[in-house]
Amino acid sequence: MDQSMEGESKVKGQWSLIDCDVHCTPLYPDEIVSRLPAYFRTQGLVLPGGPGLPHPTGVRRVDARGPQGEPAGSLPEKMREQLLDAYGVDFAVLIEAKLLTVGVHPDTHFGNEIARAHNDWLREKWLPADPRFLGSMLINLLDPTAAAAEIRRVAGSERIVQVVMTSATRIPLGDRIYWPIYEAACEAGLPVAVHPGAEGKGVAGQFSAGFPASYLEWHTNLSQNFMAQLTSLLCRGAMSQFPELRFVMVEGGFGWVPHLLWRLDKNWKGLRSTVPWLDRPPSEYVLERVRFTSQPVEEPPSNDQLLELLHMMQAERTLMFSSDYPHWDNDSPLRAFPRLPEEMKERIFWKNAAELYRL
Amino acid sequence: MDQSMEGESKVKGQWSLIDCDVHCTPLYPDEIVSRLPAYFRTQGLVLPGGPGLPHPTGVRRVDARGPQGEPAGSLPEKMREQLLDAYGVDFAVLIEAKLLTVGVHPDTHFGNEIARAHNDWLREKWLPADPRFLGSMLINLLDPTAAAAEIRRVAGSERIVQVVMTSATRIPLGDRIYWPIYEAACEAGLPVAVHPGAEGKGVAGQFSAGFPASYLEWHTNLSQNFMAQLTSLLCRGAMSQFPELRFVMVEGGFGWVPHLLWRLDKNWKGLRSTVPWLDRPPSEYVLERVRFTSQPVEEPPSNDQLLELLHMMQAERTLMFSSDYPHWDNDSPLRAFPRLPEEMKERIFWKNAAELYRL
Repeated sequence: MDQSMEGESKVKGQWSLIDCDVHCTPLYPDEIVSRLPAYFRTQGLVLPGGPGLPHPTGVRRVDARGPQGEPAGSLPEKMREQLLDAYGVDFAVLIEAKLLTVGVHPDTHFGNEIARAHNDWLREKWLPADPRFLGSMLINLLDPTAAAAEIRRVAGSERIVQVVMTSATRIPLGDRIYWPIYEAACEAGLPVAVHPGAEGKGVAGQFSAGFPASYLEWHTNLSQNFMAQLTSLLCRGAMSQFPELRFVMVEGGFGWVPHLLWRLDKNWKGLRSTVPWLDRPPSEYVLERVRFTSQPVEEPPSNDQLLELLHMMQAERTLMFSSDYPHWDNDSPLRAFPRLPEEMKERIFWKNAAELYRL
Repeated sequence: MDQSMEGESKVKGQWSLIDCDVHCTPLYPDEIVSRLPAYFRTQGLVLPGGPGLPHPTGVRRVDARGPQGEPAGSLPEKMREQLLDAYGVDFAVLIEAKLLTVGVHPDTHFGNEIARAHNDWLREKWLPADPRFLGSMLINLLDPTAAAAEIRRVAGSERIVQVVMTSATRIPLGDRIYWPIYEAACEAGLPVAVHPGAEGKGVAGQFSAGFPASYLEWHTNLSQNFMAQLTSLLCRGAMSQFPELRFVMVEGGFGWVPHLLWRLDKNWKGLRSTVPWLDRPPSEYVLERVRFTSQPVEEPPSNDQLLELLHMMQAERTLMFSSDYPHWDNDSPLRAFPRLPEEMKERIFWKNAAELYRL
């Protein structure tokens, strides 16, 4: 956790750096609303609210606001100064995290139009602003047919490197209803990223065991949705059905990955007759085609334990650095990890992402 | 995973052995029904059914059935022969796992009566059958006032060593509605055990992300409920409110423990102003007062990784051996773990349980 990156060295050294989770956001709602069809323009940008669990300091860094108090993440030039130039970021993968809640919006017509407006806004405002910005196209997973059509509409745009959708669902992501999305993503050669934040909102189901009661509990539980989604993607055969399908688990933590893969492989050995489409241990699909972003880095009591964890999850294949700028708990690329073996550092800080996104 | 314990050495050596999760079950429904009030006796033993996810071989070992095909776990003498004598088990903590679903039964009157009948049955049939049997009193967590009264009714019975309830809930276990249960458990000096199996049944909410679609997915996801419950117990202040409260997380896996404690401690550092009752890092409460049973042992690709995991979770304080006899994936005490350091082995196989249960 690193509330401010100020005061750190502005020079990252000679290594390259790809930041896989950076949050841009509209400067004002009309940036999106003006791109909606007339019917929805009159309704305004009403998105599903949260479950009522306040964050004591707000979720975004106060010092990332613009000179006139513009929202953190709303000004390309501020992001350039505070993130890209400050740390020598070679590429920043942009994800608009507030509009992700279209994936839990009860009105699928509206959700589809917001996704479409977002994608046009991203391509018109953000991607031209700096060649280091890479874009994530938003889809509304509640309407898989429309989502697949949107992927096909936007695919091929310069520097759009992935599809993104919310990790909060009422039906887990492995289910066949989503397969048109995966078919379109594979056709476009794009990985599918999953990002948290809509948990407990809109039509998303509750978490395991019920609703969390504080931001601390809510935030801690976010990882569980990622475990459930990954389990579902494997067990329902989505990863087998689409051999080109790649997933990016963004901001869901990664300390749980070894445990989940061990548990899945063990259960698969005993129960594989029930999932004939899984013809190899589930972990193999993950190691080959699922990637995890680093922020928030779990902080074991010793660096040795963090290194052991990285070894257990084969981080040299599976982990990609992310800052989560400008969120409250963003990680600095200079401080997020202890001293790593050179090869692992290169893999985490840029090579894994460069390969995934074909940069 | 060990489908059969047959053919293994019948001698465990000189060390003691406490098995913290052994499943007894009624021989026929009338063992319970006959102990119900007249009104419920006429209804029969109808419990919430599962979500429709078949296990290919059935959930219980076929070779644990009685000579006339009696259900696995229904005959004390069979359990004595196949588990206690075969492995030299000094104590076996009995948990009736099917009736646990009273905790998700929509009729709380019925749930309360089943819990009461179960506790009488346990004390009358099972505990007198062998001095090595220890009992878990069942409660219906959907009626905390009645559950607290039941704890007070049964507490003090010989060899009743804990309270047990289901890990499946619609409101997480830290919530204040359950505090009468914890007050009564502390008063009785008994730990509270949580056991899976009712997930997706009755009035339990769905899992993270939606409903699982296969037994493999369902079983893999069970751990998530334990993470959510533990998080809730800490974040809502139940562990702080009751300094004597001890929990046993049974059959929920343990590979996830290090990750969850790291994540909780990190989040607590940033958000502790929102949980003033947590005046220490959450992990400290867990290390002191929460215990985990071992089965199903996660199976990392190397023994070194399992030993690292045990080290990360301070297994010499937190882990207690369990076989889960007679379930399909039960663990043999002779094979569940690789060679462990002597001190850790003693702690896991008997000392941690002996301390917790004051044996």
